[in-house]
Amino acid sequence: MDPRALGELPNWRLVLEYDGTDFEGWQVQPGGARTVQGTLEGALARLAHGGAVAVFGAGRTDAGVHAEGQVASARAQTRLEPDALRRALNALLPRDLAVLDATRAPDSFHARRDARSKLYRYRLWTGPTRSPLRERTSVWVARPLDLGIMQRAAAHLVGTHDFASFRAAGGTGRTSVRTLTRVELEGEAGGELCVEVEGTGFLRHMVRNLVGTLLEVGRGRRDADSMPGLLAARNRRAGGPTAPARGLTLVRVEY
Amino acid sequence: MDPRALGELPNWRLVLEYDGTDFEGWQVQPGGARTVQGTLEGALARLAHGGAVAVFGAGRTDAGVHAEGQVASARAQTRLEPDALRRALNALLPRDLAVLDATRAPDSFHARRDARSKLYRYRLWTGPTRSPLRERTSVWVARPLDLGIMQRAAAHLVGTHDFASFRAAGGTGRTSVRTLTRVELEGEAGGELCVEVEGTGFLRHMVRNLVGTLLEVGRGRRDADSMPGLLAARNRRAGGPTAPARGLTLVRVEY
Repeated sequence: MDPRALGELPNWRLVLEYDGTDFEGWQVQPGGARTVQGTLEGALARLAHGGAVAVFGAGRTDAGVHAEGQVASARAQTRLEPDALRRALNALLPRDLAVLDATRAPDSFHARRDARSKLYRYRLWTGPTRSPLRERTSVWVARPLDLGIMQRAAAHLVGTHDFASFRAAGGTGRTSVRTLTRVELEGEAGGELCVEVEGTGFLRHMVRNLVGTLLEVGRGRRDADSMPGLLAARNRRAGGPTAPARGLTLVRVEY
Repeated sequence: MDPRALGELPNWRLVLEYDGTDFEGWQVQPGGARTVQGTLEGALARLAHGGAVAVFGAGRTDAGVHAEGQVASARAQTRLEPDALRRALNALLPRDLAVLDATRAPDSFHARRDARSKLYRYRLWTGPTRSPLRERTSVWVARPLDLGIMQRAAAHLVGTHDFASFRAAGGTGRTSVRTLTRVELEGEAGGELCVEVEGTGFLRHMVRNLVGTLLEVGRGRRDADSMPGLLAARNRRAGGPTAPARGLTLVRVEY
């Protein structure tokens, strides 16, 4: 569709929650995979009586990644008031996707471009046995972790750095410099443990690669104070493995 | 199998966690439905090299009901030490079922007969929108609830009463007198709200029927002080509807 015409449609700001387990990620793909963006566009198109719609997400979450507060900007023509739009969408959307909030947005609002910061949470289960009730949203780490040393490593990551060592192989983009405002571990060894990462921007797989590296530190395979050297290496092969998608949740986006 | 021979096999006490969503309940059924008992017996039989095994659960949870601390007694011949048995079972069991603890039990131990009390938790989500990440383990209640009045109603249920008004239609058994030691609401209106019910024994669907009735009280459709009369009626038709299975979790069993 002509982008000029799309820009003439009313603009909405939607806050979304989803269980990412059964989605092939956020972004519409060729071949009709079940994606969050595609599912939301399908519901909006029904409410727009088949008219053109377009949805842009603040974060293009990977397959299996969840959201408690993903934000999308959506172009769609509808006569519904914001709260009626929210309810109408929730009636059409499947059980693993919901619109928590819908408001009219200024014409210039774009969920991805305008995002000032994002908070991600990575959930680990560190009990002695895997936990079926936590299976969809956390990752079991059987070996003991040294939280103190993980916290020391995490502190090295806060600030503005070149995160090339934590960028997905094949990740592109002009620069891999990003700013993290917070990298914190919450919870307890032997129980639920979360890594919260907040920053102004993220590279592809960046949080999962940071968590995979912090887990190597927690198991004593890497020194906490090796983080500055790892950042300086600017080499993905120097970083730890990519932690599984299902532990990750996009918690909130700020504008 | 000859019950005498089964009684000669070593006896185990297993603590289980499961996500009940994809099980057809606890109890083995004709026709090979996927049940927790059947899945566990299958794994035990593999470890017993095809020898006879038998598993008895403290609570015969319905389809869709979860457990954080179901207890089973299990008869099975194996040379494994308890902790090795736990690990071997967890390697064989599917992702939605795990053995949290395995110990040798006295020959006389029977998980159901010997249980002294059970704690169930029923999880409600009372936010303004349904919650995809809570979908499998809680039930959304859209209308506002008056917690104070629900608490007053709950207090009437504590003690030894004839709970016939809360027994599943078609439920059988010599007596419908049971003792509840605790019926408490925890959480907050507008957020996560749990009903915790602890007692020495439960009738079929009893917790779900109690919750369905408390929800009618919370919505103002029933008076908190109508509970004594409802108990006295001893008539299932006088009680509220059966709340959905997915909100219910068997939290622990005491002996």
